[in-house]
Amino acid sequence: MSALYPGTNSPADVEAVEEIMRRGGRDLRERMARAEAYLERVAAESGMPLASHATATVVAGGKRLRPLLVMLAAESAGGAREGADGEQSLIRAAVAVELVHSATLVHDDLIDGAELRRGRPTVAAVAGRGAAIATGDLLFSRAFAELARNEDSEQLRALSDASSALAAGELLQREDAYASEIAVERYLERCRLKTAALFEATCRLGVLVAADGTGALAGALGAFAQRIGLAFQLLDDVLDVSGPAERTGKARGTDLLDGTVTLPLILARQRDERIASIDLARLAGPLEAEALCDAIAATGALEQARAQALAIVAEAKAMLPGLFAQRYDLLGLVADAVVERYC
Amino acid sequence: MSALYPGTNSPADVEAVEEIMRRGGRDLRERMARAEAYLERVAAESGMPLASHATATVVAGGKRLRPLLVMLAAESAGGAREGADGEQSLIRAAVAVELVHSATLVHDDLIDGAELRRGRPTVAAVAGRGAAIATGDLLFSRAFAELARNEDSEQLRALSDASSALAAGELLQREDAYASEIAVERYLERCRLKTAALFEATCRLGVLVAADGTGALAGALGAFAQRIGLAFQLLDDVLDVSGPAERTGKARGTDLLDGTVTLPLILARQRDERIASIDLARLAGPLEAEALCDAIAATGALEQARAQALAIVAEAKAMLPGLFAQRYDLLGLVADAVVERYC
Repeated sequence: MSALYPGTNSPADVEAVEEIMRRGGRDLRERMARAEAYLERVAAESGMPLASHATATVVAGGKRLRPLLVMLAAESAGGAREGADGEQSLIRAAVAVELVHSATLVHDDLIDGAELRRGRPTVAAVAGRGAAIATGDLLFSRAFAELARNEDSEQLRALSDASSALAAGELLQREDAYASEIAVERYLERCRLKTAALFEATCRLGVLVAADGTGALAGALGAFAQRIGLAFQLLDDVLDVSGPAERTGKARGTDLLDGTVTLPLILARQRDERIASIDLARLAGPLEAEALCDAIAATGALEQARAQALAIVAEAKAMLPGLFAQRYDLLGLVADAVVERYC
Repeated sequence: MSALYPGTNSPADVEAVEEIMRRGGRDLRERMARAEAYLERVAAESGMPLASHATATVVAGGKRLRPLLVMLAAESAGGAREGADGEQSLIRAAVAVELVHSATLVHDDLIDGAELRRGRPTVAAVAGRGAAIATGDLLFSRAFAELARNEDSEQLRALSDASSALAAGELLQREDAYASEIAVERYLERCRLKTAALFEATCRLGVLVAADGTGALAGALGAFAQRIGLAFQLLDDVLDVSGPAERTGKARGTDLLDGTVTLPLILARQRDERIASIDLARLAGPLEAEALCDAIAATGALEQARAQALAIVAEAKAMLPGLFAQRYDLLGLVADAVVERYC
């Protein structure tokens, strides 16, 4: 759970996104509203009675950070192409990314056995395992169906590569669950796959649909977004250990209890032998998980992890001025918003 | 489970496919071998340690009916385009379809709680729920990533529409599970979504990648394949009731026990009030399911369902001669192979 994730919107998060929307002006707000309406339509119009699961999941919303990144990246590359179709292509790209994100949320909730998402019961909780798997599959499929209408295989490759990465990251996380030794590099690779790849795709897609989009700019802004996504995941993992629960909407150490070895734990293991000897699979419950969080915090590992995330964000922001474009200030604000919530 | 499905290959099935391969000549065999090698490579090269699940699933194979249909449809439309890339596009289309099919098998097995597939433990049985969901997602994503390389959004639309239909069909099946009244039309709609749509996509894709492919021919052969897929599912559902278990590799009435209302049951309910009053949710176990199968068979519903499937196959075959092309005899053989196993 995190800053710019749904369900755990702190006032500060909402403010950060609202600030971006305000500074983005009427065009941006109108586009985001169109994307929102389009998302609801896509989720609903599958024509199936049970598309209601898909609709509920997608419509329950979030801050739509990923569609926002698509639009800001497009602005940085000359904005939507001329004509209704240019505008529509941009909306479709934004919608496709959010559909993939929604699909992974549905599947992740099922894997994690989560009961609530965005303050509502998850698809799995309401309708069972089968419906949750199929709903996620439907959302994935609709994402590609929508993006296919843009008639650009470069865009499709960007999305399918990200989607493959997401699944591969989930597999890596399963593989490494409860592991007693995980190298930092392997942890970072997992974050790149699970989180950063879809962030990267948002900016790639935004540039590719834009009037002045070039492959070089798509690569450059993609690299920016990839770093933002990576920092986002690192800080999210810090928050799982630091809490407080009132702010994250879940107990501290929830990831640890699920066997997910995150950066704070990896760093704390290097600093404290007692922590290194703890087997996550033997954590008896939330209280022991909280005690482990305290022990991790006492080593200074949280500060180290935070500093690493901030360095990545700084690196990302440093990439912006070197690029020719107009909306980098807003992309920079997104970078700040990621940091803001955690620090 | 069925005729041309993996894991339940009766000698007759294998013979039918071998006959098609023999008559298809060396080109067809070589292409199928290339598709097979490509499938293994795609599944393996994701570079993840746990791609091994994907590999095991894909490599354990089956008769590759869907890739075969892609190739036969392409032959009917002038064969692969000139040059290495034309050949490669055909292989990629065949591989993409099989990857989507494999993805649904992995997810279906998880939903059904199946332990074995193609004589091997399922991904879910070996590696758990999370790995099975992610492996299916990875296979879906790789399918679109592969097909995107063909640089043809028409092809991507064909596959993503089929993939959406598969998921929607699964949702419909969940929704209708254990229902006391299902109209025949609704049952047929479910079969169209769950099974026939991907068959349709095979022939559409085969035509679209071919040298002389036109939208009209893609539509026509797609309609042929859609009917074959529909009959395939109807006959599969008959087999669940008729058995024998030695032939299908599973106990009679397995679908009924899972709450799946199939055509034989729908027809038997119309013919016998006692059957109409049976609540599938109250079936105590395999023995009661078998008794229900006997009762359904006694009404003559199986013959009626079979006749309906055969009529659909006949309709499909009647569509072939009206089309201009060379390999319709082999497509006709596929139609026959679907029938052969069941009747």
